Amino acid sequence: MESGGESEGHPYVPRDLKLPGFVPGFMPKSTIIGAYLLTSLLVVSIVWIGSGRIHKISKVDRILMCWWIFTGLTHMVLEGYFVFTPDFYKKTSPIYLAEVWKEYSKGDSRYAARHSGVVSIEGVTAVLEGPACLLALFAIATKKSYRYVIQLAISLGQLYGAIVYFLTSYLEGDNFAASLFYYYAYYVFANSFWIVIPTAISIRCWKKICAAIQEQDLKKTKTR
Amino acid sequence: MESGGESEGHPYVPRDLKLPGFVPGFMPKSTIIGAYLLTSLLVVSIVWIGSGRIHKISKVDRILMCWWIFTGLTHMVLEGYFVFTPDFYKKTSPIYLAEVWKEYSKGDSRYAARHSGVVSIEGVTAVLEGPACLLALFAIATKKSYRYVIQLAISLGQLYGAIVYFLTSYLEGDNFAASLFYYYAYYVFANSFWIVIPTAISIRCWKKICAAIQEQDLKKTKTR
Repeated sequence: MESGGESEGHPYVPRDLKLPGFVPGFMPKSTIIGAYLLTSLLVVSIVWIGSGRIHKISKVDRILMCWWIFTGLTHMVLEGYFVFTPDFYKKTSPIYLAEVWKEYSKGDSRYAARHSGVVSIEGVTAVLEGPACLLALFAIATKKSYRYVIQLAISLGQLYGAIVYFLTSYLEGDNFAASLFYYYAYYVFANSFWIVIPTAISIRCWKKICAAIQEQDLKKTKTR
Repeated sequence: MESGGESEGHPYVPRDLKLPGFVPGFMPKSTIIGAYLLTSLLVVSIVWIGSGRIHKISKVDRILMCWWIFTGLTHMVLEGYFVFTPDFYKKTSPIYLAEVWKEYSKGDSRYAARHSGVVSIEGVTAVLEGPACLLALFAIATKKSYRYVIQLAISLGQLYGAIVYFLTSYLEGDNFAASLFYYYAYYVFANSFWIVIPTAISIRCWKKICAAIQEQDLKKTKTR
């Protein structure tokens, strides 16, 4: 599939996508994915160890802090680079972040094509949600009263973004992956984490908030 | 502007937008907008009066109930019709809901053009947020413990949708209005309500939730 695909100079689907100035990626996918996973593991380990020193913090909160640093940095660094680098596919040297998007575009060529829906969602994710993730981490660590509501707000935003991300693709024919492998590995599998985890966090925060409101309501009724 | 525009058979911009089978609207805009405002006024009045009979309900909550019925029915009826009627611009008889979208498309032709981002956002809004608005109304009326969190969730969703709605247009050149009048009256003014009001509700619910969590936190600290 890929060799025949080089007629347009890029490995992406649809084949007639015009990407003048495209320069193929320099790094093997094992390097790109490996570097992402290893860096994430390092950062998550630091937060896990560091959070252990916080007074009376639960394991769930420590795991959540690990998630927020991981997703927050992914939003700000990886997705932030994509949002502000429209010409990433033209990079003539092996810049890691450009390599990430040259590779991911095999699963969804709308990234290389600068699809307005994808860029808009990624813009909101990188600029608003990314920093908010770090604020959520801080809120959990310091037990701020907004710790649940901020986690819920970000998670619902991630879910909204994921729904629109998949819906726009579906409505346009769902033909943006270079092969079934890339479709399932990048488009489906990689994104599924940002559906499953935000759903779980949303449910948890929703319940915590309802419990607190109920307690307050009961107290007010008693006071009367 | 409009008379010259009839060359493509429709009054929308960009002029080269292809809409085979387009049938011009039958109703004057005063009828379309007037019917929407009058119906809304009627429904809001019913909720306002009905909510007055609820025991110990605040004026703010009654106003919010009016907002939720108005925005919920707008989402479900108007936007729901758009989502599930791709050929509204071909309707050969004066169907009110088709007229609405034939008219609104003068402010944003992406509706007639079935822009994937617009259809996706409207899909989420009509199918998920619309019914959730009615649930919010019910939650306020019956003082459910989830009344703040559901209002926050919907409002943030409306804001997310509005941001992506405007961003996609901006990224594609912001040239979808038939004239400056339609641009400001429909695209900017009409949508501004779904930015200002959800922002205000989000802030209110955020504060209410934080106050309840803080109270709970203080109580737990005291208990220890």
